[in-house]
Amino acid sequence: MEHGAEVLDEAACWRLLAEAEVGRVVFVEGDDIEVFPVNFAVGGRSVLFRSAPGSKLELVAEHPQVAFEVDRHDDEMAWSVILWGVAERLAFDDEIEHSGILGLVSWSPDEKFNYVRITPDRMSGRRFRRADVD
Amino acid sequence: MEHGAEVLDEAACWRLLAEAEVGRVVFVEGDDIEVFPVNFAVGGRSVLFRSAPGSKLELVAEHPQVAFEVDRHDDEMAWSVILWGVAERLAFDDEIEHSGILGLVSWSPDEKFNYVRITPDRMSGRRFRRADVD
Repeated sequence: MEHGAEVLDEAACWRLLAEAEVGRVVFVEGDDIEVFPVNFAVGGRSVLFRSAPGSKLELVAEHPQVAFEVDRHDDEMAWSVILWGVAERLAFDDEIEHSGILGLVSWSPDEKFNYVRITPDRMSGRRFRRADVD
Repeated sequence: MEHGAEVLDEAACWRLLAEAEVGRVVFVEGDDIEVFPVNFAVGGRSVLFRSAPGSKLELVAEHPQVAFEVDRHDDEMAWSVILWGVAERLAFDDEIEHSGILGLVSWSPDEKFNYVRITPDRMSGRRFRRADVD
């Protein structure tokens, strides 16, 4: 979907992120690549998701430099946004509350989940005409 | 979407791959992660996509060890499949024809596109109850 791609500006990238429901967090551990689809929210200029305890949280701690991707398509066009940044686990209740994640989504705040924030250093958005490739 | 995940067997992974329309190829180049959504087809036990000349093809040549991800969700459940393997550009017309890619999709065979095949060494499929996390 790369042929004839149009570059999206940062505002358009954030709009696409805000509209997307599922994104994919990509971790790299040595030669190994891990990809996790997550429900997420946008809060401030960050991507926020929650995670049950497990391998994803261990990766956040050990390999915080991640990529995050969303894409969308209709019959004619496709969009994708990728951002790169550091993933960090939100440690304190007030930090979680101030991140905006609890207000943005219907997730129950009293469940014992962990919240992760990715603050992008860099992002890239593209729009493609799908007719060019299929 | 990791909480309460159920592991999918290989046959279920291939069924999900065959039903998906868009997947994401993940390349790693040093510390850099690149993610490209692609239209793809399943042929034999491989994933096939085509690519216009450009950065993606250069990555295939230089960093062929890739991950490929698809996911899908409805209101209650989510599925994801990730596979890992070597991406290789199909070099000869008869190889392209025998890959099955031309018969599987409506892509025009006479356009000057390049075809890439990922043959997985390993794959992982998971099914999640979305209600557990949102």
